[in-house]
Amino acid sequence: MKRVSIGLLGLGTVGSGVVKIIQQNGDQIARRVGSELHIKRVLVRSLEKERRVQLPADTLTTDPNLILQDPEIDIVVEVMGGVEPARDYILKALTAGKHVVTANKEVLAKVGDEIFTAAAANRTDVYFEGSVGGGIPLIMPLKEGLTANRLRTVMGIINGTTNYVLTKMTEEKAPFDEVLKQAQELGYAEADPSSDVDGLDAAYKLSILASLAFDARIPLEQVYVEGIRAITPADIESARELGYVIKLLAIGKERDEGIEVRVHPTFIPTHHPLAAVQGVFNAVFVQGDAVGDLMFYGRGAGEMPTGSAVVGDIIDAVRNLQSKVNGRVKMMRQDKPIIPIGQTTSRYYVRMLVVDRPGVLAGIASCFGQNDVSIESVIQKGKGEDPVSLVFVTHEVKHENMARALDQITRLAVVREITNTIRVEGEPRR
Amino acid sequence: MKRVSIGLLGLGTVGSGVVKIIQQNGDQIARRVGSELHIKRVLVRSLEKERRVQLPADTLTTDPNLILQDPEIDIVVEVMGGVEPARDYILKALTAGKHVVTANKEVLAKVGDEIFTAAAANRTDVYFEGSVGGGIPLIMPLKEGLTANRLRTVMGIINGTTNYVLTKMTEEKAPFDEVLKQAQELGYAEADPSSDVDGLDAAYKLSILASLAFDARIPLEQVYVEGIRAITPADIESARELGYVIKLLAIGKERDEGIEVRVHPTFIPTHHPLAAVQGVFNAVFVQGDAVGDLMFYGRGAGEMPTGSAVVGDIIDAVRNLQSKVNGRVKMMRQDKPIIPIGQTTSRYYVRMLVVDRPGVLAGIASCFGQNDVSIESVIQKGKGEDPVSLVFVTHEVKHENMARALDQITRLAVVREITNTIRVEGEPRR
Repeated sequence: MKRVSIGLLGLGTVGSGVVKIIQQNGDQIARRVGSELHIKRVLVRSLEKERRVQLPADTLTTDPNLILQDPEIDIVVEVMGGVEPARDYILKALTAGKHVVTANKEVLAKVGDEIFTAAAANRTDVYFEGSVGGGIPLIMPLKEGLTANRLRTVMGIINGTTNYVLTKMTEEKAPFDEVLKQAQELGYAEADPSSDVDGLDAAYKLSILASLAFDARIPLEQVYVEGIRAITPADIESARELGYVIKLLAIGKERDEGIEVRVHPTFIPTHHPLAAVQGVFNAVFVQGDAVGDLMFYGRGAGEMPTGSAVVGDIIDAVRNLQSKVNGRVKMMRQDKPIIPIGQTTSRYYVRMLVVDRPGVLAGIASCFGQNDVSIESVIQKGKGEDPVSLVFVTHEVKHENMARALDQITRLAVVREITNTIRVEGEPRR
Repeated sequence: MKRVSIGLLGLGTVGSGVVKIIQQNGDQIARRVGSELHIKRVLVRSLEKERRVQLPADTLTTDPNLILQDPEIDIVVEVMGGVEPARDYILKALTAGKHVVTANKEVLAKVGDEIFTAAAANRTDVYFEGSVGGGIPLIMPLKEGLTANRLRTVMGIINGTTNYVLTKMTEEKAPFDEVLKQAQELGYAEADPSSDVDGLDAAYKLSILASLAFDARIPLEQVYVEGIRAITPADIESARELGYVIKLLAIGKERDEGIEVRVHPTFIPTHHPLAAVQGVFNAVFVQGDAVGDLMFYGRGAGEMPTGSAVVGDIIDAVRNLQSKVNGRVKMMRQDKPIIPIGQTTSRYYVRMLVVDRPGVLAGIASCFGQNDVSIESVIQKGKGEDPVSLVFVTHEVKHENMARALDQITRLAVVREITNTIRVEGEPRR
């Protein structure tokens, strides 16, 4: 049987998963594919470190050139993460005519154009199913199966850490800090959780998904990002009363005027398929003009799930190598206008603490009205206390109008504090 | 730009969808693929019938040979349904070296082997994403993205009509016949609903899914099938009280002893992702040793969703034509043992009407015990009435033991009737 030699860059969580899967299921994969997958060399930072997988001693190396310059290696698998030196190694591998599989969302979100251009110039391919949604097949459906559709919306829960934290906050009515600490102890959140809880990780992934869905370049700095640090149990309780749950959503929409790309906490109706996605699970919801509503659900991270996607990509590369094909599916990355966040429209939930006095609501309503913010519902809580809380849900309103209205409201003497403003997608069933 | 000529066999619901999508999105597809899709000829039964789509008059024909023998046509799309003449046309197209796209689950379930063998012999490919789950990408993930996994379970709601009926019965506490009639009036059920409500349609689709998931031949006659006609509002109410919903599931599992393939109404816990799948929506749940739990959700039927899958397959075929590739992904259909239904194990819900008299439960429990059926819970309803109903949930038990126990119980004088026996998958959260 033929043998395809693979060079692995990195042997952390995902790299170990790739090795384990090839060791466990290599015989079945060889039967299905007609070639044996051979991990010829693995780049590591230290030869001394204890590893989760067993590999022949001479497989490990600290010299990237033993992979990048080895003519026997056809497929280079980059699972190091970060921009450099991942970018440098990927570009060198492509220049050397090798196919590249990567699970690195950051390098794709930041320098994807450079990478795809280099791949096309060298008649090689870049595979990246593992970069978004762990083991969930997302990239291939977007690149291939759904090609017949004009996609209007791609919207998902694509960060497991924040979904775990929000799920626990909802179940236990516990504050953010406490749940985050638990998550860190359980290994569901990093010691420095900022990339997850501030939404950056989701922004990387959204830029990749939106770029495929809308055939567009999505510059990372044009993705609007809000994290979940400000969410309180009171917000979650208000959501529940109104028929919603709060999720950190990554939302991409193509409209006539351009593309919207934003990551922020969102009220979604409890009956929406994404509302049922619990804990570390991820799910991506897609709307196409022909296919209608679709959802893909599964484990969004971890050694074996992400390893499943990476080995799936290796197999795809092997099939193309066997057929001597490259560029079978073209990457379309056109320049399209990105709608600035101020020009996007949403419905909003706003919670504020106010003095309980006649005329307060009139003052606030007038600020909303002057800025074309139309109110769908108001609920007052804690009658007779001081302060009382007011919960508004608005109709569809432009972000910059909302910001202006809130700015005026903050300056009203009777308003103690606007505690939170959260976007609302969809309506609960009545 | 290059042009790929397509011959369409059939212009019913799916065929019209294919034409509409190519007409609406042809420019975008051409940009993405680099070739223009040209519907050269469409086989219809009558040239006079009014059509939902506009096509040049000379495109329609009643002569299949104008498609099957036209050397300019590279791709034949079969959307007629049924076994004959679909089988005959597909085989002729393959023999003529054409690639075939089909959405026909029945022909694949019944004579798939013959078709795949002919394709391999003629170095052409058969594409069938539209045969299961409408527009949901299922076939490509199973054939490609998940190749790294050993799949253990593929389990889903793959018949929209029955899911609509069960959803309505649950929401409205209405009996089967009444809801079926509504569904027929709304066009969600056929005038002759038997293929759907008796589970045959789901069995066709399960044989296709299980064959891909487990690399096996799944003879249709070995798929166990039970429909939903016997489900009553009382069963649905018992399910709710116990923390379950009732769905018609198609279940494929690979065990050490062989493959289980069965279609039957099933209690699934309300927190299971499949439990939230409402109305005509479909969803397929997959478990792999690397990827863990996955679910794919979307519209399982209809002109545009199924059309989306068929046009997606056409595009896949065009990409392979451009690269002059065939057999890129091999079909693995090995002979593997299918576990007879009597040897499969499940937990069971059993509802029976009995005379309310001391000692009744002891008699029934003894029949269960003698056949190794261990009871997880018993609920008696309607105390003091005659008859009262008893609801049992069993632990895991072999089908044939369960059948023997029920046979003995039926013969007890105090037992009026066993009203239903329904399998249970998974346990509710306590």
